[in-house]
Amino acid sequence: MHTLENILSFNRQFVEEKQYEQYLTDRFPDKKLAIVTCMDTRLTELLPKALNLRNGDAKMIKSAGGIVTQPFGNIMRSVLVAVYELGAHEVLVIGHYECGMTGLNADTVVGHMLEKGIPQETLETLEHAGINLNRWLRGFDSVQDSVERSVGIIRNHPLLPPNTPVHGLIIDPTTGRLDLVTDGNEYLANK
Amino acid sequence: MHTLENILSFNRQFVEEKQYEQYLTDRFPDKKLAIVTCMDTRLTELLPKALNLRNGDAKMIKSAGGIVTQPFGNIMRSVLVAVYELGAHEVLVIGHYECGMTGLNADTVVGHMLEKGIPQETLETLEHAGINLNRWLRGFDSVQDSVERSVGIIRNHPLLPPNTPVHGLIIDPTTGRLDLVTDGNEYLANK
Repeated sequence: MHTLENILSFNRQFVEEKQYEQYLTDRFPDKKLAIVTCMDTRLTELLPKALNLRNGDAKMIKSAGGIVTQPFGNIMRSVLVAVYELGAHEVLVIGHYECGMTGLNADTVVGHMLEKGIPQETLETLEHAGINLNRWLRGFDSVQDSVERSVGIIRNHPLLPPNTPVHGLIIDPTTGRLDLVTDGNEYLANK
Repeated sequence: MHTLENILSFNRQFVEEKQYEQYLTDRFPDKKLAIVTCMDTRLTELLPKALNLRNGDAKMIKSAGGIVTQPFGNIMRSVLVAVYELGAHEVLVIGHYECGMTGLNADTVVGHMLEKGIPQETLETLEHAGINLNRWLRGFDSVQDSVERSVGIIRNHPLLPPNTPVHGLIIDPTTGRLDLVTDGNEYLANK
């Protein structure tokens, strides 16, 4: 049976048995948090549990590496929508150790693309269209630096409400232990 | 006590009590899925439960509305990293009913920005710098259309490996019920 069929079949049972009743909440985050973090599969259940977040407590914004690269990209738009329209009052940027984006090398990814059947001509067309794959597919060397950089983009964003605390943290993807990189309240107090 | 202190204090206990042991996994998704969905707070626990996904089964890529707007933006990069570097073989785009991005109006958001202390001059500077807030902060009228559009961008992306199934679904944020919008296997079979 295909994965999709498996999922749909399980889902019918989930709804029939009203298993959803234990997760009922509304769309305004109870703890008023927006969390920018990584898509890493180990964090799906672990991160909310390790922060004591229940369904309803936070907006979860997730991407490869949890990085904010563009001040006017999708991730930053999500942060602003969470803050202005959905009641988030604080932002947490949470990187993690052993991240797939640490040391990600664009040449390696491009090599895998060629192996999987992407024609060399396509890559050349993109390059000549002004798309810099080397920059786009670059990871980071240090998760600490990456968290600081993303926090910096959010804190300095021209459209973030003044006095919004933006914290930076790193989570251990095995134990869920949090290390504080930068405390947004301290930053605001010393500004 | 501040939210951040609360979280850090809870977290120390979580690690000390080794509560993480029930979530141990590795970073390669067991079900080989990359899921593009919404940051909505009601989906944090409900979506994985309603799809029978455990820690380790899928890369979760989340943003406001779960929309893919830029073929060379952060969300699409995350999908490609999941597929090429982290073993994902299928992609699910999952919108949801009652989404905050349905009917989101840029003028309303800009009004809230002015209320929260963003100066009119800043908005004008951005406009004159070529940043179109009306377009950037626009939501969608129909979640069905939005899912179809995002699925289309992923399916047609020049760098997606040929024959990667990309499915489109809508989830009910209360019951977790999934409605199928488009089946990626059927699409590939009829291509």
